Amino acid sequence: MSGPIDFYFDFSSPYGYFMAEKVDALASAHGRSVRWRPFLLGAVYKITGDVPLPSKPMKGDYAKRDFERSARFLGLVCRIPDIFPVSSQHAARAFYWLEGKDPDLARRFALETYRAYFRDNRDISKAETVLDVAASLGADRVALETALGDDALKAKLRGECDAAIARGVFGSPYVVIDGEPFWGVDRLPQIERWLATGGF
Amino acid sequence: MSGPIDFYFDFSSPYGYFMAEKVDALASAHGRSVRWRPFLLGAVYKITGDVPLPSKPMKGDYAKRDFERSARFLGLVCRIPDIFPVSSQHAARAFYWLEGKDPDLARRFALETYRAYFRDNRDISKAETVLDVAASLGADRVALETALGDDALKAKLRGECDAAIARGVFGSPYVVIDGEPFWGVDRLPQIERWLATGGF
Repeated sequence: MSGPIDFYFDFSSPYGYFMAEKVDALASAHGRSVRWRPFLLGAVYKITGDVPLPSKPMKGDYAKRDFERSARFLGLVCRIPDIFPVSSQHAARAFYWLEGKDPDLARRFALETYRAYFRDNRDISKAETVLDVAASLGADRVALETALGDDALKAKLRGECDAAIARGVFGSPYVVIDGEPFWGVDRLPQIERWLATGGF
Repeated sequence: MSGPIDFYFDFSSPYGYFMAEKVDALASAHGRSVRWRPFLLGAVYKITGDVPLPSKPMKGDYAKRDFERSARFLGLVCRIPDIFPVSSQHAARAFYWLEGKDPDLARRFALETYRAYFRDNRDISKAETVLDVAASLGADRVALETALGDDALKAKLRGECDAAIARGVFGSPYVVIDGEPFWGVDRLPQIERWLATGGF
């Protein structure tokens, strides 16, 4: 009788992508569902003063190597996109619009958007790319394009970012299970044990 | 016919402590030895502009929880010391002085110093604590106390810090295997696979 797992991520985060490929199956194996919550790391960094990993002295060079090695370790395909990192607000807004219509479609859209970026090197910062991915899954392209310009959808994403920050989310991926927070795809073994044992 | 693993760490780093408890047995299982290399995170942070984890907005609160949970996950005992983090230059200098006499003694000193700090809540920033730990392992307390004041030993540690930085070490623990760098105790599964397979 346990509640859903909350999965916070930014569409421009490679470790978020890796978690996106893993989290549903892992949760499902333990009888849990997952609430996917895209947010904008940029909104968090305004508060923490943090900067994107690739811009950090020394750590940035390591990170590029670690992205690709971690993908191989997890059995995933990942190449650092030519344009990286990017703004992900169109993708995140599209997710929340789709979620309002069909939560399962929204989740499939999130995973396909990640793959478009980290597998197929498509520029997901462009509304055009986001619309293409959504349309390929059967979403109403024209209605979504209109929604992306609406203030209501922008406000929805701002509200989701504020809620994530209020909950302590400072990085991507960030998973919360029964109130316990796990930052980073490298916490997968701890997440698995937590789900299996109910906490340790 | 593979060379030793290089293990860089700061004595004030809890994740460095966890790695210290694990790295020798893991390396040994794959026929490798380990070169223990204490350095000062403070010297690195002067270059990277980074700050200690506990001081970071949002991330600091998470980190304290993660330290203790990660210890439990790894089967280790760890409590955040009352004074944390601390300057670790006395401990690092003592290590290099001991290493010049007896490398095995130096390694045992490193592990016992970590335990004194993260298990027994002793203030390892004090020369007195460092001398107590070394003496308990049979080191010459008076000679070490004299050496801790010598410019030669201070220069030795500065040289080791410069060498670590030149190699790209930006955090603790940082492990290098055949030129491949691994940052963080959460990279233990990748390190294990790397040692088992010769790279992936």
